[in-house]
Amino acid sequence: MKSMKHFEINLGKENVKLAGYLHDLSEELKNAAIRPAVLIFPGGGYFTCSDREAEPIALAYMAEGYQTFVLRYSVGKDIPFQESYEDAIAALTYVKENSEKLRVDSEHIALVGFSAGGHLAAAVGTMSMVKPSAMILGYPVILDATGELIGKEIPGLDKAVTEQTPPAFIFSTSNDMIVPIENSLKFAAALNEKDVPFEMHIFSDGPHGLSLAKPLTSNGQKNMVNPSAAKWFEFSISWLKSMWGDFFAEDTDELEMKKNGISINTPVRLLMEETQCSKILEKYIPDIKEMLAANPMSGQFSVIIMNHYSPEIITDEMLKAIERELEQISK
Amino acid sequence: MKSMKHFEINLGKENVKLAGYLHDLSEELKNAAIRPAVLIFPGGGYFTCSDREAEPIALAYMAEGYQTFVLRYSVGKDIPFQESYEDAIAALTYVKENSEKLRVDSEHIALVGFSAGGHLAAAVGTMSMVKPSAMILGYPVILDATGELIGKEIPGLDKAVTEQTPPAFIFSTSNDMIVPIENSLKFAAALNEKDVPFEMHIFSDGPHGLSLAKPLTSNGQKNMVNPSAAKWFEFSISWLKSMWGDFFAEDTDELEMKKNGISINTPVRLLMEETQCSKILEKYIPDIKEMLAANPMSGQFSVIIMNHYSPEIITDEMLKAIERELEQISK
Amino acid sequence: MKSMKHFEINLGKENVKLAGYLHDLSEELKNAAIRPAVLIFPGGGYFTCSDREAEPIALAYMAEGYQTFVLRYSVGKDIPFQESYEDAIAALTYVKENSEKLRVDSEHIALVGFSAGGHLAAAVGTMSMVKPSAMILGYPVILDATGELIGKEIPGLDKAVTEQTPPAFIFSTSNDMIVPIENSLKFAAALNEKDVPFEMHIFSDGPHGLSLAKPLTSNGQKNMVNPSAAKWFEFSISWLKSMWGDFFAEDTDELEMKKNGISINTPVRLLMEETQCSKILEKYIPDIKEMLAANPMSGQFSVIIMNHYSPEIITDEMLKAIERELEQISK
Amino acid sequence: MKSMKHFEINLGKENVKLAGYLHDLSEELKNAAIRPAVLIFPGGGYFTCSDREAEPIALAYMAEGYQTFVLRYSVGKDIPFQESYEDAIAALTYVKENSEKLRVDSEHIALVGFSAGGHLAAAVGTMSMVKPSAMILGYPVILDATGELIGKEIPGLDKAVTEQTPPAFIFSTSNDMIVPIENSLKFAAALNEKDVPFEMHIFSDGPHGLSLAKPLTSNGQKNMVNPSAAKWFEFSISWLKSMWGDFFAEDTDELEMKKNGISINTPVRLLMEETQCSKILEKYIPDIKEMLAANPMSGQFSVIIMNHYSPEIITDEMLKAIERELEQISK
Repeated sequence: MKSMKHFEINLGKENVKLAGYLHDLSEELKNAAIRPAVLIFPGGGYFTCSDREAEPIALAYMAEGYQTFVLRYSVGKDIPFQESYEDAIAALTYVKENSEKLRVDSEHIALVGFSAGGHLAAAVGTMSMVKPSAMILGYPVILDATGELIGKEIPGLDKAVTEQTPPAFIFSTSNDMIVPIENSLKFAAALNEKDVPFEMHIFSDGPHGLSLAKPLTSNGQKNMVNPSAAKWFEFSISWLKSMWGDFFAEDTDELEMKKNGISINTPVRLLMEETQCSKILEKYIPDIKEMLAANPMSGQFSVIIMNHYSPEIITDEMLKAIERELEQISK
Repeated sequence: MKSMKHFEINLGKENVKLAGYLHDLSEELKNAAIRPAVLIFPGGGYFTCSDREAEPIALAYMAEGYQTFVLRYSVGKDIPFQESYEDAIAALTYVKENSEKLRVDSEHIALVGFSAGGHLAAAVGTMSMVKPSAMILGYPVILDATGELIGKEIPGLDKAVTEQTPPAFIFSTSNDMIVPIENSLKFAAALNEKDVPFEMHIFSDGPHGLSLAKPLTSNGQKNMVNPSAAKWFEFSISWLKSMWGDFFAEDTDELEMKKNGISINTPVRLLMEETQCSKILEKYIPDIKEMLAANPMSGQFSVIIMNHYSPEIITDEMLKAIERELEQISK
Repeated sequence: MKSMKHFEINLGKENVKLAGYLHDLSEELKNAAIRPAVLIFPGGGYFTCSDREAEPIALAYMAEGYQTFVLRYSVGKDIPFQESYEDAIAALTYVKENSEKLRVDSEHIALVGFSAGGHLAAAVGTMSMVKPSAMILGYPVILDATGELIGKEIPGLDKAVTEQTPPAFIFSTSNDMIVPIENSLKFAAALNEKDVPFEMHIFSDGPHGLSLAKPLTSNGQKNMVNPSAAKWFEFSISWLKSMWGDFFAEDTDELEMKKNGISINTPVRLLMEETQCSKILEKYIPDIKEMLAANPMSGQFSVIIMNHYSPEIITDEMLKAIERELEQISK
Repeated sequence: MKSMKHFEINLGKENVKLAGYLHDLSEELKNAAIRPAVLIFPGGGYFTCSDREAEPIALAYMAEGYQTFVLRYSVGKDIPFQESYEDAIAALTYVKENSEKLRVDSEHIALVGFSAGGHLAAAVGTMSMVKPSAMILGYPVILDATGELIGKEIPGLDKAVTEQTPPAFIFSTSNDMIVPIENSLKFAAALNEKDVPFEMHIFSDGPHGLSLAKPLTSNGQKNMVNPSAAKWFEFSISWLKSMWGDFFAEDTDELEMKKNGISINTPVRLLMEETQCSKILEKYIPDIKEMLAANPMSGQFSVIIMNHYSPEIITDEMLKAIERELEQISK
């Protein structure tokens, strides 16, 4: 059995860790062999990296089909912004450079950051040479003045927006008592001035640090649950799909399947309807008719699937031979 | 860094594998230390265990906070039903017996099965001594007559329902060409007769094998995408929550926090507002005021979180001492 | 100003009243000149016609673009079923025969009935010569045995289903204490046997008489509010759209608008970009350039809209002349 | 039969018309006798009042239970802003002053305006003495500079916000080519500066004039359909409910009904279970037991409902007498 890979690596420094959550690769999910990705920077005032904005976020995007990564970057009162920033760039570079191995579509990588992690994501989006394809910013710190709140000198990112800044999705609450809403408003104004596409949802009510705004990320605090603000997540998915499309799903009713040509991906049931094809199958799998009679449901599977699950019935060699012969016909 | 555990174990037989997907345990997600669980039986006509109904389903429930498990049970034309059935019982027993280690709420374990996997789930729910707390059945095989379609003798589960059968959630499509909709209808009628609570969504249109009915589980086939039928998943979550409740989220605004008593879970900012408490903190963390002045955002964290992230500032011993002294006050 | 028509008529008998709620006809909503319709039969045990299942339902469908009708049919302990049934047929016949005047698409009329009203809707759908295009049945009475509950002899409609019965959408709750869920289950089984398409949502929990299951139809009773069951309404809309399509919305970006030919529906701004067209406009509206310079936003309106709102600027005669001349060009 | 009232009145001027859409008053919808209201100002560049932003919007809010009003205000190139503004104030004043007759909760009236109508709504919200309780602004014109686009001198409303300005809900699209998004951003910033609560949804994509962003308001133009932006409507409802609450729905299971005291609103079935009450009923309705035996479903109705539908069985006098006697008991 194959299944998802979960790994953790150090990026140069001992305390800087990148976690990867990678979907299984399956013959039955061919349209999702390569996947878009999100790289998540949890918040925590450049003081910690909060668990509430780490794995639960990764799992939410993973359920939507993304390869996901969480970075624990350098934090602490004596750590200058530059150090966290370099960690973030290193992580994005790692995902990009290893995209083939990680089965990531390198053109479709979004940074997702919350609070100070939102500042970090927006910093990479605006200031770095290495850029993500999109930014998703939850109640982000943007302004240099807000740096005072966290006792750290940080760059004001509203001033750093350029025409090269990737599209941004922002969500926050208008009564956030910790990071003033000016941070979101001024970033949106700056994006707009440079014609950078953006989407922004400012909910009327909710404290700083909502994460998914659901009981499961509330740590038991009722004010961290907000069904209206919780919609930010599905809006972020719609927004990514509006730019990148969804997983490929072609128009394949059976007629088109035939039109597209017969192959080892065609359900066996359809192959048996074509004399030429049924002869090929019977040549390699003499008791194919008995098999189908005994188990009609198996006819909906292709020979490639049969080989995958029953290599004792259809060996790799048989599969290759069938493939070769079917190719002759479809030409 | 801690993060999710992914494991795979054999359950007695070489080809029978149980995969577990376990959330990280975090001080910041105290209300989710113990979690409800789903154990998934993929479909495949008792001939294969389809990847399309395995990991994507596990990830979808995981994103909603569940511990999730996928069983690859014995399949194949020469495997009698009884063997698959025993695998299923072994898997459920494993999860129950190891619930503490797996951080699973043993009273809240649902079986989730699709097609033949739905038959397997319903078989355990109706016939076994070891029972799940709930069953979620996607386009399930129920009737013995439908067994002919898969060339195998299987028990008819509509006749197996008793008062002890756990509540069931069923979804299917009325024009399913492979597993006739009578399977769902007759199971619902049987549940009803024994006063077993059930919920059933029969969508008007969609082929057999929809899985999540989204592009990401479509394997590229457009007919496997159905936004209306895709709602089954969120209905299954609402249904589980209606029975089991959601993750605990108490009514904690600051006033209540004070009322509930002061503890090492109280944000430091609040503790500093009470003379008695601020004295205790200053005793153990002499520069606490400077810390908060330099980084006001850090005030929203509790000392338990500070200990977790900055054990060099607040050691385990200090934490225990602070806890003891705060307990004296709140009495 | 034009706006919606609301009317009430008697259908032969004094106590039998049909209320119609008709959308305004507007030049700006050309794709909705003719609309699908729903004819609503409130429930009330053939004893009353409940307001809770009358106007609030009509308004919900009206907001989705439907012409809507509510029938108060003959009820009371001495009224035989046949009388209510004839009222229902009379109402459907009225809507069909007056479809042009009512701007109803006579091919797309659904009956919507609740409880006893669901029985009445299903009776017309199965037994009558005059048939609706679809049936939407909320917690319907179907079985003759259930007639005992309401002290009246009624036909069992599960036995009345034929191949001519139109598609049905059913919703109910499995723990309905008043109308047993067998009513829904047996009707679905009967539809399935005759290959009549159907969709059915049986929610696990909720009392009889949920109506929209929202506070606004609760009459203050909390048990009549159920956010999960309240989804039945949007499912009914999706179901109707899956059969009938949505309001026409063609692919009209400006390029296509030009390709489709220039007409009095083309925004003035675009017409002015074509020398031939701008000459025509200037001929009839000499100060058109000044008008557009003074109010650039007006350029997005077509001359037909301008005639509609400012007949003193563009008279009916001018509109006809412009139309003729533009037609010459587009040929 | 009673049902909704639809009326149109002139407000002083011939071309200025206020349309009202009022729900039926029903004994069965007692919790909705008085309702919150919306007063809608369609857009059209102060040049027309667009039908696309008039009745369809009124019907959408009406379906959610609101009393709704649409104002066609003075428009045209020679009409100064002041005149439209006075019409708007007159309409709001009319609704407030007639709130009792209109069954409107005068503390819960929202203005809803689109484009130029959004400017008008925001003008009343910021500049007028007569104020609404909330403003819902769709792709609004706010800035005086944007007035040039419509060839008219208009006040800049970002400068008019005060602490007395009511809460605002804003939605728009970031790539609106007609009304620059600065209008929304600067209004939000101004609201924030005066601590006025607000919610704002800026969708990434969509042309000016989306209305409901659904096919039914598209006038056939595909670019006017946007399922993501169409969510603005339900967000506006959630926002209003977060401030005003929903229709009252008390915690009434039967036990509480008894606890709350027995009345003419109590289902007859429950009254019959109490000897004292059943005696009263039998006194006035001698054959009540036979009635209930013949039609058990009727027992779920109260005597007030029975009087409403069957005044020949329970006359007004009988109702009053029963009420008096029941009151004696519950004391």
